[in-house]
Amino acid sequence: MGKGYCVGVDLGGTNIKAGLLDDQARILCSFSVPTEVDKGNEVVVNNIVGAAERAIREAGVPRDEVVGIGIGSPGPLSHRQGMIINPGNLPSLKNTPIRRIMTERTGIRCTLENDANAAAWGEYWAGAGKGVTDLVMFTLGTGVGGGAIVNGRLIRGYFENGAELGHIIVNPGGRRCSCGQLGCVEAYSSAYFLARHAEDLIKAGQPSVLKQRMDAGQMLMAEHIVEAAKAGDEVANKVWHDACYYLAVATVTMQHVTNPERVVMAGGLIAAGDFLLEPIRRHFRELTWELLDDFPDIRFATLGNDAGFIGAAGCAWAAHETGDW
Amino acid sequence: MGKGYCVGVDLGGTNIKAGLLDDQARILCSFSVPTEVDKGNEVVVNNIVGAAERAIREAGVPRDEVVGIGIGSPGPLSHRQGMIINPGNLPSLKNTPIRRIMTERTGIRCTLENDANAAAWGEYWAGAGKGVTDLVMFTLGTGVGGGAIVNGRLIRGYFENGAELGHIIVNPGGRRCSCGQLGCVEAYSSAYFLARHAEDLIKAGQPSVLKQRMDAGQMLMAEHIVEAAKAGDEVANKVWHDACYYLAVATVTMQHVTNPERVVMAGGLIAAGDFLLEPIRRHFRELTWELLDDFPDIRFATLGNDAGFIGAAGCAWAAHETGDW
Repeated sequence: MGKGYCVGVDLGGTNIKAGLLDDQARILCSFSVPTEVDKGNEVVVNNIVGAAERAIREAGVPRDEVVGIGIGSPGPLSHRQGMIINPGNLPSLKNTPIRRIMTERTGIRCTLENDANAAAWGEYWAGAGKGVTDLVMFTLGTGVGGGAIVNGRLIRGYFENGAELGHIIVNPGGRRCSCGQLGCVEAYSSAYFLARHAEDLIKAGQPSVLKQRMDAGQMLMAEHIVEAAKAGDEVANKVWHDACYYLAVATVTMQHVTNPERVVMAGGLIAAGDFLLEPIRRHFRELTWELLDDFPDIRFATLGNDAGFIGAAGCAWAAHETGDW
Repeated sequence: MGKGYCVGVDLGGTNIKAGLLDDQARILCSFSVPTEVDKGNEVVVNNIVGAAERAIREAGVPRDEVVGIGIGSPGPLSHRQGMIINPGNLPSLKNTPIRRIMTERTGIRCTLENDANAAAWGEYWAGAGKGVTDLVMFTLGTGVGGGAIVNGRLIRGYFENGAELGHIIVNPGGRRCSCGQLGCVEAYSSAYFLARHAEDLIKAGQPSVLKQRMDAGQMLMAEHIVEAAKAGDEVANKVWHDACYYLAVATVTMQHVTNPERVVMAGGLIAAGDFLLEPIRRHFRELTWELLDDFPDIRFATLGNDAGFIGAAGCAWAAHETGDW
């Protein structure tokens, strides 16, 4: 395939991040604009189209060299139909055939991908997964998101809900997840749920330095847990242990399912640095088999919040190369 | 692609099953010959080559219309290198470049696939997975094997140990598996380990009708557990419950990882019929989320012991069509 450019758009509940990249994943321009989700479908769609047009204009590249626009959006959505279905934090985009609209309004081909897949593709194309053909990514944010690339292709699944890795069951009958299941890795290892775990232990009477924050009516956050765990607080240490341990369990499961060369941890929680990565790696080695030496390299993502729009642009590249829009 | 024929060869520790199939998965001939694993590498390799040649001869098709030979073998092996590495029950085939040897000896292209993947491909091509693009198979035999097809392609993995679904961890810290891990689905749901589970409970003092068999020095088998569970024996019921429950846990995990349309259960244990399938389906519905209605159809395999050579022939077809030998 010849050279060219792709636009990447990352839809969020608050902001739209967008940029224009070349075929080597070099960013020619990028910016963020408000989504204005409360202003209704037409305004939000105009903001998306506007962001794509602005990226092309700001980068100053010839329009006919822009081969595609990639959009990463919260799900549920259908890549096959190019349709945003019913994202919780973007209600005004319910049932929006965004791929068709974008192509009609811009004259440029468009592909739609769920945001977790797009971010995984971003790391695969331009970040911590560069040079790898088989990659797994866990995104540790409010929830636990996931993406899996097998032999250079995203797992999307028959129902288009593939790689919902946060809902791997790591402790059957365990803590309740937002999805309704018991014992999902998300219920232990997401920033939101690990803080709820600490609150539950403290409410059950376990002593903790975190209690004074709760008594003051403040919500516990993941960073409070990290801080308290580092200071030796038992509740915080238990909760943090479980977060790292169950992530390692899910990583062993992915080792045996897609057998990746590399597993990338992304999302807000990786700010904890070695305090997170070291125990994940240690638990992984304790938990995994000794039958074969097929251990993935576990490391942190490198693109931060830019993974979404970079990956969306990368998805457009992949669509351009495979013909699968 | 035009019409043609493929040979499928399924290597086992005792017998080699082989057959010739056309492009519609119709079996023109099939048979079984002794592997003679104790007679050394040269004899076993001759038996494999001989089985392929016999299949072509017996089917009576023009040799130049045979487009490929597929071999399913116990692992570890390398599909990419066409090399059998170190299968436990086929020691005389250690480090055998079987793909190259077959092609040199027969003049026909050859592809090598691990036996669990080949069997899954067999069900996908000609059995319980026909018409589906995204399939997961669990093979419930002495161990728990697996295969996963995503968008019409087998998951092989970077280290070529993909879809080792028996080693999904369903109960961290639980029973010891043959692979060294604790709490694998194989440690609960394989014919071998569910019988060991019953023995352990009885040795620990739990009363059971199965004790007299143990006292007589006989080994418990999965069929004894099924029989006793049906008769209301508590130990047998506990063990059988765990086998079905943890299979359902692994199925929920696969629902969220590869998001298949269908999940096929295969292997000797499916002789238990609805006594196995009904609780797996029930536990699955109890365990899975209610967020989205993306539930796979869970059903039994239909090809029995023929899945291996049929799937091996199917792998040769797929290699012929994709060029990936």
